[in-house]
Amino acid sequence: MPTLGHLINGTRHDGKGRTQDIFNPSTGEVAGQVRLADKATVEEAIAAAQAAYPAWRNTPPAKRARIMYRFKHLLEQHAEEIARLIGQEHGKICHDAMGELQRGIENVEYACGVPELLKGEYSKNTGPGIDSWSEFQPLGVVAGITPFNFPAMVPLWMYPMAIACGNTFVLKPSERDPTSTLYIAELAQEAGLPPGVLNVVNGDKEAVDTLLDDPRVQAVSFVGSTPIAETIYTRASSNGKRCQALGGAKNHAIVMPDADMDYVVNSLTGAAFGSSGERCMALSVAVAVGDTAANALVDKMKTQMETLKVGVFSDEANDFGPLITGAHRDKVVGFIDSAETQGADIVVDGRRPRVEGAENGFFVGGTLIDRVTPEMTCYREEIFGPVLLVVRVGSMDEAMQLIDDHEYGNGTCIYTRDGEAARYFSDNIQVGMVGINVPLPVPVSYHSFGGWKRSLFGDLSAYGPDAVRFYTRRKTITQRWPSAGVRESAQFSFPS
Amino acid sequence: MPTLGHLINGTRHDGKGRTQDIFNPSTGEVAGQVRLADKATVEEAIAAAQAAYPAWRNTPPAKRARIMYRFKHLLEQHAEEIARLIGQEHGKICHDAMGELQRGIENVEYACGVPELLKGEYSKNTGPGIDSWSEFQPLGVVAGITPFNFPAMVPLWMYPMAIACGNTFVLKPSERDPTSTLYIAELAQEAGLPPGVLNVVNGDKEAVDTLLDDPRVQAVSFVGSTPIAETIYTRASSNGKRCQALGGAKNHAIVMPDADMDYVVNSLTGAAFGSSGERCMALSVAVAVGDTAANALVDKMKTQMETLKVGVFSDEANDFGPLITGAHRDKVVGFIDSAETQGADIVVDGRRPRVEGAENGFFVGGTLIDRVTPEMTCYREEIFGPVLLVVRVGSMDEAMQLIDDHEYGNGTCIYTRDGEAARYFSDNIQVGMVGINVPLPVPVSYHSFGGWKRSLFGDLSAYGPDAVRFYTRRKTITQRWPSAGVRESAQFSFPS
Amino acid sequence: MPTLGHLINGTRHDGKGRTQDIFNPSTGEVAGQVRLADKATVEEAIAAAQAAYPAWRNTPPAKRARIMYRFKHLLEQHAEEIARLIGQEHGKICHDAMGELQRGIENVEYACGVPELLKGEYSKNTGPGIDSWSEFQPLGVVAGITPFNFPAMVPLWMYPMAIACGNTFVLKPSERDPTSTLYIAELAQEAGLPPGVLNVVNGDKEAVDTLLDDPRVQAVSFVGSTPIAETIYTRASSNGKRCQALGGAKNHAIVMPDADMDYVVNSLTGAAFGSSGERCMALSVAVAVGDTAANALVDKMKTQMETLKVGVFSDEANDFGPLITGAHRDKVVGFIDSAETQGADIVVDGRRPRVEGAENGFFVGGTLIDRVTPEMTCYREEIFGPVLLVVRVGSMDEAMQLIDDHEYGNGTCIYTRDGEAARYFSDNIQVGMVGINVPLPVPVSYHSFGGWKRSLFGDLSAYGPDAVRFYTRRKTITQRWPSAGVRESAQFSFPS
Amino acid sequence: MPTLGHLINGTRHDGKGRTQDIFNPSTGEVAGQVRLADKATVEEAIAAAQAAYPAWRNTPPAKRARIMYRFKHLLEQHAEEIARLIGQEHGKICHDAMGELQRGIENVEYACGVPELLKGEYSKNTGPGIDSWSEFQPLGVVAGITPFNFPAMVPLWMYPMAIACGNTFVLKPSERDPTSTLYIAELAQEAGLPPGVLNVVNGDKEAVDTLLDDPRVQAVSFVGSTPIAETIYTRASSNGKRCQALGGAKNHAIVMPDADMDYVVNSLTGAAFGSSGERCMALSVAVAVGDTAANALVDKMKTQMETLKVGVFSDEANDFGPLITGAHRDKVVGFIDSAETQGADIVVDGRRPRVEGAENGFFVGGTLIDRVTPEMTCYREEIFGPVLLVVRVGSMDEAMQLIDDHEYGNGTCIYTRDGEAARYFSDNIQVGMVGINVPLPVPVSYHSFGGWKRSLFGDLSAYGPDAVRFYTRRKTITQRWPSAGVRESAQFSFPS
Repeated sequence: MPTLGHLINGTRHDGKGRTQDIFNPSTGEVAGQVRLADKATVEEAIAAAQAAYPAWRNTPPAKRARIMYRFKHLLEQHAEEIARLIGQEHGKICHDAMGELQRGIENVEYACGVPELLKGEYSKNTGPGIDSWSEFQPLGVVAGITPFNFPAMVPLWMYPMAIACGNTFVLKPSERDPTSTLYIAELAQEAGLPPGVLNVVNGDKEAVDTLLDDPRVQAVSFVGSTPIAETIYTRASSNGKRCQALGGAKNHAIVMPDADMDYVVNSLTGAAFGSSGERCMALSVAVAVGDTAANALVDKMKTQMETLKVGVFSDEANDFGPLITGAHRDKVVGFIDSAETQGADIVVDGRRPRVEGAENGFFVGGTLIDRVTPEMTCYREEIFGPVLLVVRVGSMDEAMQLIDDHEYGNGTCIYTRDGEAARYFSDNIQVGMVGINVPLPVPVSYHSFGGWKRSLFGDLSAYGPDAVRFYTRRKTITQRWPSAGVRESAQFSFPS
Repeated sequence: MPTLGHLINGTRHDGKGRTQDIFNPSTGEVAGQVRLADKATVEEAIAAAQAAYPAWRNTPPAKRARIMYRFKHLLEQHAEEIARLIGQEHGKICHDAMGELQRGIENVEYACGVPELLKGEYSKNTGPGIDSWSEFQPLGVVAGITPFNFPAMVPLWMYPMAIACGNTFVLKPSERDPTSTLYIAELAQEAGLPPGVLNVVNGDKEAVDTLLDDPRVQAVSFVGSTPIAETIYTRASSNGKRCQALGGAKNHAIVMPDADMDYVVNSLTGAAFGSSGERCMALSVAVAVGDTAANALVDKMKTQMETLKVGVFSDEANDFGPLITGAHRDKVVGFIDSAETQGADIVVDGRRPRVEGAENGFFVGGTLIDRVTPEMTCYREEIFGPVLLVVRVGSMDEAMQLIDDHEYGNGTCIYTRDGEAARYFSDNIQVGMVGINVPLPVPVSYHSFGGWKRSLFGDLSAYGPDAVRFYTRRKTITQRWPSAGVRESAQFSFPS
Repeated sequence: MPTLGHLINGTRHDGKGRTQDIFNPSTGEVAGQVRLADKATVEEAIAAAQAAYPAWRNTPPAKRARIMYRFKHLLEQHAEEIARLIGQEHGKICHDAMGELQRGIENVEYACGVPELLKGEYSKNTGPGIDSWSEFQPLGVVAGITPFNFPAMVPLWMYPMAIACGNTFVLKPSERDPTSTLYIAELAQEAGLPPGVLNVVNGDKEAVDTLLDDPRVQAVSFVGSTPIAETIYTRASSNGKRCQALGGAKNHAIVMPDADMDYVVNSLTGAAFGSSGERCMALSVAVAVGDTAANALVDKMKTQMETLKVGVFSDEANDFGPLITGAHRDKVVGFIDSAETQGADIVVDGRRPRVEGAENGFFVGGTLIDRVTPEMTCYREEIFGPVLLVVRVGSMDEAMQLIDDHEYGNGTCIYTRDGEAARYFSDNIQVGMVGINVPLPVPVSYHSFGGWKRSLFGDLSAYGPDAVRFYTRRKTITQRWPSAGVRESAQFSFPS
Repeated sequence: MPTLGHLINGTRHDGKGRTQDIFNPSTGEVAGQVRLADKATVEEAIAAAQAAYPAWRNTPPAKRARIMYRFKHLLEQHAEEIARLIGQEHGKICHDAMGELQRGIENVEYACGVPELLKGEYSKNTGPGIDSWSEFQPLGVVAGITPFNFPAMVPLWMYPMAIACGNTFVLKPSERDPTSTLYIAELAQEAGLPPGVLNVVNGDKEAVDTLLDDPRVQAVSFVGSTPIAETIYTRASSNGKRCQALGGAKNHAIVMPDADMDYVVNSLTGAAFGSSGERCMALSVAVAVGDTAANALVDKMKTQMETLKVGVFSDEANDFGPLITGAHRDKVVGFIDSAETQGADIVVDGRRPRVEGAENGFFVGGTLIDRVTPEMTCYREEIFGPVLLVVRVGSMDEAMQLIDDHEYGNGTCIYTRDGEAARYFSDNIQVGMVGINVPLPVPVSYHSFGGWKRSLFGDLSAYGPDAVRFYTRRKTITQRWPSAGVRESAQFSFPS
């Protein structure tokens, strides 16, 4: 069985020392091993990045961008293979993996535009004969630490733009499903990145701590759970690094009485159960305003869910696949159990799904829980599974209060036809990404991704325009040329 | 011998009626015929563009951009074939044709970023509860009329961005060398443009007049000579069309006494003689400040020019090739003759170059003329040939006055090491594109190309950010939602 | 009785030669005379502007802006006097004149931000060691020609920004009501403008023609009727000037069946009758979708209009005042007559209003005409009077077709609560300024004002961000410093 | 003797409890007392800000800006009084205080442009029928903690923009010289700020800690020394607040052999000794390249310094005034002593200046120390006094290495005429604000102020465009309207 190593200074690096199992969650079997980098290995990667930095920084942005164009092309050429690698280790169905990859490619596309995005501001005559302008210069070596749930997309949120801005990069992907991540990084290499510009180290806490503490690392981008995000942000910050750390979520959709319920149910189904709900933008709570709306929603949802298919990643007919580990599957089931115990109504129960031929896979079926209240455990915590909660409220204000009171503020949505309700909601809700009839309001690659409250630590959002600011440092130049130089002296050079 | 037709509504259209010879200027022989579209054929193209417009306009910008990415890839794959087609009909050496194509591709790259470039400005609460934003909407059918000297690049200045912005396009390329232009347009088609989005009609004045007068055409981009540019601008404008028309040039470089003369001579050589000087950015006048600088310049230039090689397009060892037609060759020779007659000093004479094996090609060798004065014919007019004039002045101010007094204001350059001289020059000179130690200051694709004075008619420059404005129309929306809608009424739906 | 002269080179200039009466339209009496500048006087103003240009251009933008701050302050201090001067010659009620002035002041405010707005784009390393940036340089002498209906606001759309950008200005205001315009210009002078930076010449066609033909004038901004706008645009353009010419309008509001009819009627009343409808953004056609909506609209409008008060400008209790001249009053009455003749239904008839104590004023009362059809004269032409037409249609698409078929495309509005209807309308309608439940969608000063179709000739809109582009010319600098300069030689200066 | 209290919820608040002396450093005498707020008082201010927030947030930006215009006007009207208050407690000469105030006013001016600066990005059709846009929403209650050296300017870097963006503010100024700060805040109140929008609390560590720990405070801006800045940044960050903390500096100017030495000496004098060197942008180290340049610099500087006048704040003939406290005076003298001990050459010695009639003032005269080396205490630490060090090096690279090796990276300058040297320097130096022949490269108010390395903790710079980002939070809205709404149903309403 293969052991996955690292990518350091442009070559595969098998590493030595500790390893960890990688599972195929569709079967529950061990599919391989991943090497866990020790401190020295991570430092080797940092050193490679540091060495590659000066030349890369001085490479014109348009030339750096040209490698991103080739990278995009290679990603498209190898899309099916990538999707297979994702599915095998993460469990998501191929169509979903292809979708993930596509969003990742869109971030590469945005990085292609870096010559435009790096433009500074030029002011003539800030004083008499004085000009000023700003430059956005790269930081140096930058690190990324990414989660299991989007092994292709989240790394692509980070390093294409970081690198296009002139930085060099060390990526520490999730040790649960690192194979597709490494495969993609090798395509970036193939696209023309000089050795050391992009490095990948697999590992666990030891690798992470090394990245957080090494003074050569200038900035850290992280995506994961809120407790870890907070720890990483605090440690990186106190080490003088720039940091953005994205954490957890509990995304609510308000269903207004005037909403088109067929549209609601259709769009909610994908948003709640896609990728088994293992998305930080998964829509996990529907807040129905009025019992009429609530009853219609639950009835239609129940019917719709009858056709939902959970199963192995490789069958395109499945809607979603297994959870990432057996332990996580048990945790999700535990949340459903707690809801039942605490008095909620389990309308559709996915706790013991029959997946023929894959009995040992880490599956939980689509689950719908009605009459959830804010005190319940299943409401307070992020489940990260295929579970949709329904909360019933009496007014839109009550629904909004519920959302604002939750510790997370990643995404949210309102279903309505009414312009005024939509505007009031989007204006006032304390959430960073707001959908109007869009249950997964993930910003496109040319906007930026960022939650509010405890969903993001840091000033700047991920990808899009904010990423350019995150991966560069502003420098302001003020210039005045003393008079009486060659211009005047040249007056006398005429041999009359 | 083949007759080149048109590309209308996604398919080759052989056309009928008048034709015209296409020459291979390296041999002086006829290489083919091009069909000259009559009014009805042009109207057919316009109709195809008009029909394709509604669906194309509603295609999301990111999806339109994706075709541009593929187009770029195809252009790179077919670069050598394109360079050969350019060289065959235009005469420029392959390395030069590759350079032209590369600049064209960079415009396709910029068009790939159209989702970013089309962003409007959003203002919350322009009044209480009132929001306003701007959208940049496409115009509809847009036309481009392009010159012989850059059959690949200049069309690529225009239609990639026009199309990426949501317009549909009718291109009328030069009838002197249309083959590469048509070939490239077919690659755009292959990249995924729906039929009718890009149409190419070959033709002459009849075709041009049809484009200028047809009310369905919303805007016209033109590059050519100043008299034609002015006519086109006036006619298009009075027909209610948006127009930008780029004309001729006479680009001067000031050589200051402190300049590094080796650097000057090296960079001037390419800028003056590359592409036989058939470039609107060709550097055709060197203005030396002081006789010391002038003498050094002329001496070193003369030596440098001994190694300059003029010859057939297909030999990569040549520096530049023939002129476009025999008539143009005679005209350029006539300018040199006039300089001689009017008292200038022909330092290097390219009037009768020996090009073995290509005796009938339309060649003029690199020519250097010293002691030119502003009254001379060769100074007043654009030569568009491999001829570099030297004017001697006594001061930088005198040099600048010379430039400002010329009717054209396309490009210019100063050679100096001195920060103050450079800043004074770039601030005050009445020219649109200014080089500091850069003799061909063609803006990169993410800036815009535009001369001043009689070098450009219109408010907005070509390609880059200005092209986005040229190919779109601003719409401003102001929105207020009346209160007391579904939001309040939903308060009462709670069944208490 | 006073004769109003000009403001040239910082001082009052009484002028000589022809004069014309200025009326007080509230009484119908002659209130004064205005001097009509001959060619020589206009040329004197142009010469003053030209002479002031070089020093003004080199004044740092922040310092130019500082004068705008003082100008704003002076306008606020003298607001009541200005409103009185407007009312006296134009006829609009003081509260309306104050509103006009406020919108004008907002344009001065926007010009205060010119240091921000003039920022160019700076790109490091467009090639190895090469930097490029753009500057937006002033044009030189710029002219403005403004209409009678906004003697304060429309000039303030133009010259504050033109001047803040570094241009000098010659303004030719309407000869109907020039006193407030001149008064305001003198406040600008008092705020600190150097002599010659802002000049005002009163006049008629002779003055206009001089401005259009003089080669020292680089650009012309015009607001007026469409036939004149078109003439001015063509003449200025063919003289090589930059031009933007704003013309007439026929602004429609679609009233959807779901609209809140009280809100509609309240907001429409001001939009249709304010300033006697003498606004290019006046809402003059209500298109009701379905007879239910139409009947409700007409009924409620009729009731609402019973309280509408037409009268003299100086009585704040009046809603609107007289028309500008007796001739114009007769023309408006003629339009109402024609509607009656052609079969429309005159619901409220303002043709013979009783205005006690002002029997000779040029008054027309608020008029509501139902069952208007597109063929009628009153529909085809711009009335520019207090007349609201109602057209009845069967669907929203029919309503939109009506709007798109009209030659003008200035402003438009939809009344609805429905988000989808609003988005479809604003996306597709061929009009430049779109209101959603906002019947007068005049963009705020930090957006730009521009109609589509025959409502605006030129590429760039008035005021806001577009004005910065209109009043400046892009210059692109590309800079490379030859190596081996003082930096290396300085290595050897160390006395070891 | 008066005791200075606080400004809370729009009114003076005398406070109770602890107080501290305020000195007049020109005389060394106690001039008054300042109240030191306890926790409860600070919480009262926070509560007032929190209460004022909802209404202020919903006030249109243009209306918020209008208060800033009035504030600017009041500051200009009361400039002399403010300068006097600054001088009395800080010691800087009136002309210098006027300069400080002017830079502060320029930040108010920039805040006037907030409607432009708050514009979000609007994207049509991010998917079919889907639109997305970003809004930059205020944070809530924001705190500022400011240093003694710019009691007017630094607070004006912060709260005008914070407030213009829709936040409410609690300011904790320096307890050394709070009177002018409070006076200015009252002018802001007078300009029209609603009560509670701007609050000022005087205090010390207790007040600071309360601001850092209170969960209602969303963000903290700080300017002071590096150790405190780091502490504040870490504490605010770990409390989940946004923070920017500006610290100390050691700003070097490289003097190249080709520099115009008269220009160098003239401009360095003000940069080194102005405000007694108590500026974080003070130019405190001149690095001369080559002994020829060094000798010329020291000679001319020595001569120039003979005319330097230190003395009381109220005499406009003085060049600079006393240091802030007796303790600080002793510390600065200690640095000079240490330089002498460690072998540097005290060329001009300001340790015991004679200031007639003010013998007890905290004065140190202008001091020039040659042959300083990097190991010396005076080089390693920030002196914050009127002391200019000269370091001699053999090459420009050596000079740059020196700068990059220092822990601070606030400002720096190069003196040269050579374009290449300037470009190389500004590109590569690890400092945030770079001057080319400008020894105090403080960015103008429409650019942003930010050092690198340990001179700034946080991602975003102070004032200018970055301040808008710092004081707002990005929200991204994604909107789709379900079809088949009122638009289609309205089709059937036609009563045929």
